[in-house]
Amino acid sequence: MGMFSKDIKKMDDLFVHTLRDIYYAENQLLKALPEMIKKASDASLKQAFQTHLGETKNQVTRLEQVFKMHGVEAKGVDCPAIDGIIEEAEEIAGEVDDKQVLNAALAAAAQTVEHYEIARYGTLIAWAKMLGRNDCASVLQKNLDEEKAADRKLSELAETKLNLRAAS
Amino acid sequence: MGMFSKDIKKMDDLFVHTLRDIYYAENQLLKALPEMIKKASDASLKQAFQTHLGETKNQVTRLEQVFKMHGVEAKGVDCPAIDGIIEEAEEIAGEVDDKQVLNAALAAAAQTVEHYEIARYGTLIAWAKMLGRNDCASVLQKNLDEEKAADRKLSELAETKLNLRAAS
Repeated sequence: MGMFSKDIKKMDDLFVHTLRDIYYAENQLLKALPEMIKKASDASLKQAFQTHLGETKNQVTRLEQVFKMHGVEAKGVDCPAIDGIIEEAEEIAGEVDDKQVLNAALAAAAQTVEHYEIARYGTLIAWAKMLGRNDCASVLQKNLDEEKAADRKLSELAETKLNLRAAS
Repeated sequence: MGMFSKDIKKMDDLFVHTLRDIYYAENQLLKALPEMIKKASDASLKQAFQTHLGETKNQVTRLEQVFKMHGVEAKGVDCPAIDGIIEEAEEIAGEVDDKQVLNAALAAAAQTVEHYEIARYGTLIAWAKMLGRNDCASVLQKNLDEEKAADRKLSELAETKLNLRAAS
């Protein structure tokens, strides 16, 4: 979509644009996660990131399925939000000079990614239903459920282990 | 914090850095909300944004209270995440060529802001408690509760009204 052209005229255009926004976001995350896995020194955090990398790959495939169901081309559009969120995660990781504190910072940064995606999938599901695309909504729901579970897992890890070690 | 200096050595440093990150974010939102209020043509969405502008002002004051309680200077640090989220909101608003579709897009964009803040306050509360700062945690909890309520309000507005009108 051009920056100065008003290409979004209908709800359907907005749905497709936002689908392309999250498609770009998930693909950027696929590139960023291996670096986060490398930086995490806690085994269970490393494992949680590794699991989420696998889930993210499946989520990209599900999004491609939704594009197909809806009869539009699977492609991304620039998403300054996820770029900023990932940039912030990388910046903070570069500023922490202690392994345990870094683990707590990485988990928190990942939760800002999860929350962006939770907001986007929540919206996309509501819009899909409004457009009579319950089929698309139920595929998107799988991604939303995974993001919520990943966020809960990170909270649990942080509260039962990472924060304790970082503060000691 | 310098880009290439490793200034975060302890959990306390990370807590203060993240407090400054959300302080910057809330202040950026104070600047962005009046534009969103102007762009919203639905009266209840306009009102929801107006209410949230008032809440955001209070949240900034509460953050200043937390800085004071913790004995550190109240100041912001660059937060590429919120910059990206706000940039995306402004971009999408510029691309929509229909008032009702724009209302749905604005509500969704605001929810990505709320979710960023929900993630950040959730983390800050956990870290404050870990650092023995239950006093700071309970002030931050008020901000978190307001963000969650604002997010729910936007979901409700979108699902009961804005999306219906945008799709018709």
